[in-house]
Amino acid sequence: MKIKAFGANASHLPLEPMTITRRLPGEDDVQISIDYCGVCHSDLHQVRSEWAGTLYPCVPGHEIVGRVTAVGGHVSKFNVGDLVGVGCIVDSCKHCHECIDDQENYCDHMVGTYNGPTHDALGHTLGGYAEQIVVDERYVLRISHPQEQLAAVAPLLCAGITTYSPLRHWHAGPGKKVGIVGIGGLGHMGIKLAHAMGAHVVAFTTSESKRDAAKALGADEVVVSKNADEMAKHLQSLDLIVNTVAAPHDLDAFLSLLKRDGTMTLVGAPATNHPSPNAFNLIMKRRSLAGSMIGGIRETQEMLDFCAEHNIVSDIELIRADEINTAYERMLKGDVKYRFVIDNATLAR
Amino acid sequence: MKIKAFGANASHLPLEPMTITRRLPGEDDVQISIDYCGVCHSDLHQVRSEWAGTLYPCVPGHEIVGRVTAVGGHVSKFNVGDLVGVGCIVDSCKHCHECIDDQENYCDHMVGTYNGPTHDALGHTLGGYAEQIVVDERYVLRISHPQEQLAAVAPLLCAGITTYSPLRHWHAGPGKKVGIVGIGGLGHMGIKLAHAMGAHVVAFTTSESKRDAAKALGADEVVVSKNADEMAKHLQSLDLIVNTVAAPHDLDAFLSLLKRDGTMTLVGAPATNHPSPNAFNLIMKRRSLAGSMIGGIRETQEMLDFCAEHNIVSDIELIRADEINTAYERMLKGDVKYRFVIDNATLAR
Repeated sequence: MKIKAFGANASHLPLEPMTITRRLPGEDDVQISIDYCGVCHSDLHQVRSEWAGTLYPCVPGHEIVGRVTAVGGHVSKFNVGDLVGVGCIVDSCKHCHECIDDQENYCDHMVGTYNGPTHDALGHTLGGYAEQIVVDERYVLRISHPQEQLAAVAPLLCAGITTYSPLRHWHAGPGKKVGIVGIGGLGHMGIKLAHAMGAHVVAFTTSESKRDAAKALGADEVVVSKNADEMAKHLQSLDLIVNTVAAPHDLDAFLSLLKRDGTMTLVGAPATNHPSPNAFNLIMKRRSLAGSMIGGIRETQEMLDFCAEHNIVSDIELIRADEINTAYERMLKGDVKYRFVIDNATLAR
Repeated sequence: MKIKAFGANASHLPLEPMTITRRLPGEDDVQISIDYCGVCHSDLHQVRSEWAGTLYPCVPGHEIVGRVTAVGGHVSKFNVGDLVGVGCIVDSCKHCHECIDDQENYCDHMVGTYNGPTHDALGHTLGGYAEQIVVDERYVLRISHPQEQLAAVAPLLCAGITTYSPLRHWHAGPGKKVGIVGIGGLGHMGIKLAHAMGAHVVAFTTSESKRDAAKALGADEVVVSKNADEMAKHLQSLDLIVNTVAAPHDLDAFLSLLKRDGTMTLVGAPATNHPSPNAFNLIMKRRSLAGSMIGGIRETQEMLDFCAEHNIVSDIELIRADEINTAYERMLKGDVKYRFVIDNATLAR
């Protein structure tokens, strides 16, 4: 089935309108008309092949919301008309230890929503900057937010689950002091989620100008990380830090804020390594430097339900599809509060 | 009280016989006649001020075993004649969260057995390369090994607890695959302990020549880490790695052997940082790079009792006090299986 999409034909070219082919829904598939698609920094990395290995044409987008337009004969969880979402994962092996544990995000054969291997004609998956998508129901999420919040729900499918999962895994909640480093697409969700979980939230930013915004998002305290005195007030006091900053930076400055047995988890990967952390900083207080990657499908559903219950959505700026190249440039400058979302209806125009 | 000891008067000088002063036992103190003292790599670092901040004269030694010769009026746990040990800690604040949690090793005011602050005359503590030592009973350990094993028990006080604590903390045991990197003073204890806990133990060494020795120590498998094919066989398979190698090396080679949610914990700190680990290596499988430092007093007692029950001691080479400078040179070359222990009776000669 031919549909309209927005993508790039090479790493050095801008995104442009294109026509792509989607498979017809198979027995286990859900066909989804896409209403909105969030714009993740990974989209830009992949389109420009900054992580290497990008296949072209590349249609990014893995923060997808829309409604079901058709279902295969074996589909049991969804009906035509349902509000649904698709995140970063559209397939996995389904039988490994990770898949059985509902941790498809860690399956060695996890298939990304774009640039992943597929039996479909092109040989690689194409993402949500498109009119519709066809996905195995196992990887489709139910959305129970009110319809009018749909655009702002889209970023939950990546930015939301990427911060929710480590917050849950490392037990953010009442009595815990949780740091969120970076107040961007991921960080602003981290603040909202950690706050809703009942943790005492400390937001870390390099921008004095984001202080008020971070408080408005739910931070109990805001620290401008360039200010050594402000940092020193939090030495050895944090249980958990979710570090959303992908640019290489001094990890020791944050590791030293963890109390004994505290963990700092990285959720963004820099193109070049961070400066090496000092082993003493880990040893002296039995601290951990960890990483976390999105979340499994079951946990993503849990996150969406948690957000609906707590009236949490992303703060977004809605754009037309043909504004995507400008949006990428603004994203690189940090000029977005806090997530661009494409109005996919504009693809048809 | 004047006693004989072996120590250094400056970072560039060899160790030599000296006379030092110990306090008389106070109300809470245990006076110990030292029979044996293990030789830890930290001793060498400190004597030569390689970690900076060494105070002179420096008498190293924190793997101390001997017998009680006097006790203060408030001492309740020990009697004259008891076999006892003293490890890396001789004091702490006693009232912080760490001390209350029996984690004196993480107390900000933990006092090391040598080169730590003290109210005693010299102003800094002096260690176990000496005829006797006086220590607050809280920091004295009971030894239930047979008397004839006493020399080989000494290294348990540092090398033993430093590997035991992370093995327990990260749940080494039946059904777990545990890696021990480096087969030296710490590593050989790690192999013995992990084996006794029931884990499947994989020893990693750079020396083909240590293969048989590692098996004899209790390793189920031995991997020469320079051999990429051997390493590849263990990809994503280990639950825990205790990395005892303090020289800077490629951590990613070992991190990639951890399964999802696995931890590699560093127990040795290099003088200069390890090459920086790749964030993807942590993120892709939610792995952790952690550190661990010795262990608390309660856990050290637990370790000694565990070792007595399982007939575990260190493999040692007994030396005279006046052989210590030669022993240091041999230790630097890795020419010891696996721990030098000083026969402190030779101090009197």
